[in-house]
Amino acid sequence: MTRWEPNARGRLELAALELYRERGYDQVTVAEIARHAGLTERTFFRYFADKREVLFYGSGMLQERIVTAIGDAPEGPPPLDVVGAALESAAEAMDARRDLAWRRQAIVEANPELRERELIKLATLAAAIADALRGRGVADPAASLAAEAGIAVFKIAFRRWVSEDVEQPLATVIRQSLTDLKAVAAER
Amino acid sequence: MTRWEPNARGRLELAALELYRERGYDQVTVAEIARHAGLTERTFFRYFADKREVLFYGSGMLQERIVTAIGDAPEGPPPLDVVGAALESAAEAMDARRDLAWRRQAIVEANPELRERELIKLATLAAAIADALRGRGVADPAASLAAEAGIAVFKIAFRRWVSEDVEQPLATVIRQSLTDLKAVAAER
Repeated sequence: MTRWEPNARGRLELAALELYRERGYDQVTVAEIARHAGLTERTFFRYFADKREVLFYGSGMLQERIVTAIGDAPEGPPPLDVVGAALESAAEAMDARRDLAWRRQAIVEANPELRERELIKLATLAAAIADALRGRGVADPAASLAAEAGIAVFKIAFRRWVSEDVEQPLATVIRQSLTDLKAVAAER
Repeated sequence: MTRWEPNARGRLELAALELYRERGYDQVTVAEIARHAGLTERTFFRYFADKREVLFYGSGMLQERIVTAIGDAPEGPPPLDVVGAALESAAEAMDARRDLAWRRQAIVEANPELRERELIKLATLAAAIADALRGRGVADPAASLAAEAGIAVFKIAFRRWVSEDVEQPLATVIRQSLTDLKAVAAER
């Protein structure tokens, strides 16, 4: 018998982040997350494959948004600007989640296995961006370089955005970081 | 009783690469690598902590060379060029090892655990480069951006260099990739 639970995914995520922070990611079980959220394990597994996925389901959505935005971009702008605009548009959905992102980041950074997973997700995202650019007719090495440079911008912007002293929307921080990267690349 | 074995490290590395390729990394034991090299397990452990380290001891040496080159760079050039020159100078030691690098790459790419390890090494290298730049007085975000851009260049250059159709020295491929990145970042 399946009962619909309002915002079950959000409640599970919040419960997981609380428990991971309090007791350490390795010590927490799915049963405990479900109980803490007032839900069943069965409900947990309707939303997440395992306890790690609670921290990484957003990466897949982010990648989908970025790849779609690159595919939908107008003709004309150079590849790195297409990537920058796609990152910005995908970032808009994240501003409402800044507090969650901040808590998640602290948990990921405290755990080597999770840090590895994060690096893999970023490498996968870079490959997907390069593919999307090739799909628009951008040749290599420009496609790979614009993708890797975009990931560099995203990493640094994200780190700044989750740090406590930045209160701007993520898209704004991304745009600024892209401008900074261009300045770094243009220095002679 | 320890007997000195000529070029034990190189023989162990070559034996490991052969066995990993033939039978798959997961299937090979340290005892087999040592036997294949005509050496003892004890000798193996004088050079490598475990069978994975055979594939990654070079990363530590590379990082040390790059960080030293950044520290020794003359005053004046912008951060990204300092990073580029350091990558080039560290790359020179690798040209004699191109065939080994090519074989190693195929093994790493065939194994998810090894691919993860490679990503971690690159992330560690990026952090070390950013630190070395800060040590020269380069402020953030320029230090982080130049480091991440440098890693992007290195990844792409290395991938080109180990591919079969590129016969140039790695340093030349790195220089070309840095020029390409600057062009990608300058497009309007």
